[in-house]
Amino acid sequence: MTGSAALFTDRYELTMVDAALRDGTAHRESLFEAFARRLPDGRRYGVVAGTGRLLELIDRFRFEDPELDWLREHEVVRPETLDWLADYRFSGDIHGYREGEVYFPGSPLLSIEASFAEAVVLETLVLSTLNFDSSVASAAARMASVALGRPIAEMGSRRTNERSAVAAARAAYIGGFDATSNLEAGRTWGIPTMGTAAHAFTLLHDSEEDAFRAQVAAFGPKTTLLVDTYDIREGVELAVRVAGPELGAVRIDSGDLPTVVAAVREQLDDLGAVHTKITVTSDLDEFTIAGLSGAPVDSYGVGTSVVTGSGAPAAGMVYKLVARRDDAGEWVAVAKASTAKASVGGRKNAARRLDSTRTAREELVFVGDGPGGAAEFEPGSRLRALMVPLMRDGVADAAHLGTAGTAAARAHRAEAMQELPIEAFRLGRGEAAIPTSYR
Amino acid sequence: MTGSAALFTDRYELTMVDAALRDGTAHRESLFEAFARRLPDGRRYGVVAGTGRLLELIDRFRFEDPELDWLREHEVVRPETLDWLADYRFSGDIHGYREGEVYFPGSPLLSIEASFAEAVVLETLVLSTLNFDSSVASAAARMASVALGRPIAEMGSRRTNERSAVAAARAAYIGGFDATSNLEAGRTWGIPTMGTAAHAFTLLHDSEEDAFRAQVAAFGPKTTLLVDTYDIREGVELAVRVAGPELGAVRIDSGDLPTVVAAVREQLDDLGAVHTKITVTSDLDEFTIAGLSGAPVDSYGVGTSVVTGSGAPAAGMVYKLVARRDDAGEWVAVAKASTAKASVGGRKNAARRLDSTRTAREELVFVGDGPGGAAEFEPGSRLRALMVPLMRDGVADAAHLGTAGTAAARAHRAEAMQELPIEAFRLGRGEAAIPTSYR
Repeated sequence: MTGSAALFTDRYELTMVDAALRDGTAHRESLFEAFARRLPDGRRYGVVAGTGRLLELIDRFRFEDPELDWLREHEVVRPETLDWLADYRFSGDIHGYREGEVYFPGSPLLSIEASFAEAVVLETLVLSTLNFDSSVASAAARMASVALGRPIAEMGSRRTNERSAVAAARAAYIGGFDATSNLEAGRTWGIPTMGTAAHAFTLLHDSEEDAFRAQVAAFGPKTTLLVDTYDIREGVELAVRVAGPELGAVRIDSGDLPTVVAAVREQLDDLGAVHTKITVTSDLDEFTIAGLSGAPVDSYGVGTSVVTGSGAPAAGMVYKLVARRDDAGEWVAVAKASTAKASVGGRKNAARRLDSTRTAREELVFVGDGPGGAAEFEPGSRLRALMVPLMRDGVADAAHLGTAGTAAARAHRAEAMQELPIEAFRLGRGEAAIPTSYR
Repeated sequence: MTGSAALFTDRYELTMVDAALRDGTAHRESLFEAFARRLPDGRRYGVVAGTGRLLELIDRFRFEDPELDWLREHEVVRPETLDWLADYRFSGDIHGYREGEVYFPGSPLLSIEASFAEAVVLETLVLSTLNFDSSVASAAARMASVALGRPIAEMGSRRTNERSAVAAARAAYIGGFDATSNLEAGRTWGIPTMGTAAHAFTLLHDSEEDAFRAQVAAFGPKTTLLVDTYDIREGVELAVRVAGPELGAVRIDSGDLPTVVAAVREQLDDLGAVHTKITVTSDLDEFTIAGLSGAPVDSYGVGTSVVTGSGAPAAGMVYKLVARRDDAGEWVAVAKASTAKASVGGRKNAARRLDSTRTAREELVFVGDGPGGAAEFEPGSRLRALMVPLMRDGVADAAHLGTAGTAAARAHRAEAMQELPIEAFRLGRGEAAIPTSYR
């Protein structure tokens, strides 16, 4: 597999380009929109993620010789179409929700304007990045919100594909997590990394004491010792004996956590290790974290549930042609009409209506407006514009890229979530926290 | 991100190496095992996938200068440990279940023997590949088994990370799917690719008729026309009018499928298009496919549910140190003792006990044996040996790699599934199809 993203594409996208180049419609100016028809069952809000990664992937979306050779050999498209693909470089405009923005059903998350052919070949790439990353970020935001300010780390790399693990770490960070166990996410996206030892390290040694001594010799007493390989009570006692009362933390990865954590806190205090922290990492999700809110936990590590979207491993976003120019140059709104999956055609703009306390009350989707920015809404209007320019003439706004873009997305998520009404934070199943209205 | 897989690693693996190099235990010969404590809720069997990809990734697992520089700059490990990482090349042995093999709780899927340090740094990579790919292959096998021989294609790239989509297409193929929409999976793994057009192609044109004419002009009447953009009945009539009764197929992506499919079949027959096939693609999973068994469907396309493991997006596999040599050179079985997550320590071998009809009756896990191959079991014994050599002294058995390995895994899955008792194919929730016994 090369570095090109060009074949992260469903075959029908190239087939459509092939047929549309033949009849000339490939060059019709078109507007595609990415949105979610609904939130995952019972969720109150979603968090957009993947946008920054997507912009970088679109920038690298080129058909090089290896891709063209393979397409030729397998007769996926006609030779004339291969020539068009060889010259491909996205040259259109993309507006959309900032990465880290909160979203609701129908929110026009991304609006891609280009020729039909240029825009349609990005369908799979757009949806893969948004669906996966938003799934993780949305789950992460729920977990971080019930962690009540206690640090929370993502450590689920092993429960998702080795490369999606890197994207998951990034999305969880945008969603409000503080660190990741994944080293590539640290390198690529500047996310703080963490981790000390697994049970294997204890089992490698002739005794738990040998293992603890080895770890303290290597990293000093401020390290985190995993105390549940054999017996937690004995493990805690040994940990403090080996590291002294200045031991940084103990990690607990099993057991009935509320009970165990309370007992360990008491034991640590009795041993004089009053500043030693307790971190827990055993199959946590938003519900078990909420259940630990009264326990003396100092930090959380979350694996499977966050990288798999806590029951919603894909955010359900779709990519639809919503408008295109006809031969007379007029924009025509278009939409599939069949009942179960009907869409709203036409160009969209969106704003969030806030009340006097800056609490979100309504997601307003304006149909037919141009995809303008904040300037369209007066500063005092209590409408917060949601769509910003992300790419102009094929050039991405650098503010959304790389480690800085990732950090900005995390900060934006924190701000946007402050606007959510209190009902949004209930974990029980329910409707979207605010209604979406089309205007 | 470079081509190296070395940072698809949790930080604690390097931390453990760092501490174990300091006290010398890093070089203790160790045996790690990958297994699943249980199957996903209600499932009767699982299908191993990811093995071939994993062997290729282990082969490329090297710390090059960019990785070493980053680790140095962030002080993840000591400088001496960086030197050890710079020389890293896996030189151990790997035995395990063939890719495509059926598995049950406790099946010793992979047995990795090397020094502690060499083996422990692979933990995340081993689990990411096995957990994700096996999740998809296990779901795919259930779907393929209820498709009753009708072709079934994977088209869920858009519902998972852009790179995991390629692995998902491969895993679904191993699980029994026949094709994928994902072009990179076609190129990298030799999987047949498919796809013609989306609703956007119809909406791009001034009329459905224009769109159908364009598609038939490009690909001939044997193409598949998507007939549900506006009105299915009118769409079908138009499709046959444009392409003639030799129209290859119509695709239906919405509606109450059993009813709609029956009506479309009748309509096609009335129009003389008796050989025109019907393919359906609307939010299918094993349950809706089973519900269509009596409907005149000719082929299925499945998206979200297969790439997200149909409710079980991670297979729940873990990677545990089960044995290591002590300073006297003796192997010592080791296992975590805490109750909820206790493991069985020791070296494992495994065989499936078959009855006189070659139906599987029991998963036998021998504890303490060497990881031998089929030779350990007599040919007439009705015990099928399950563990084969996958990598010897760091060199992978080429039979498991690349497109040939992928095809072999798919063929092996078909054979292994023929041994399953009939109860294994029930979709209702239940216990594993056969019990696992430790000997």
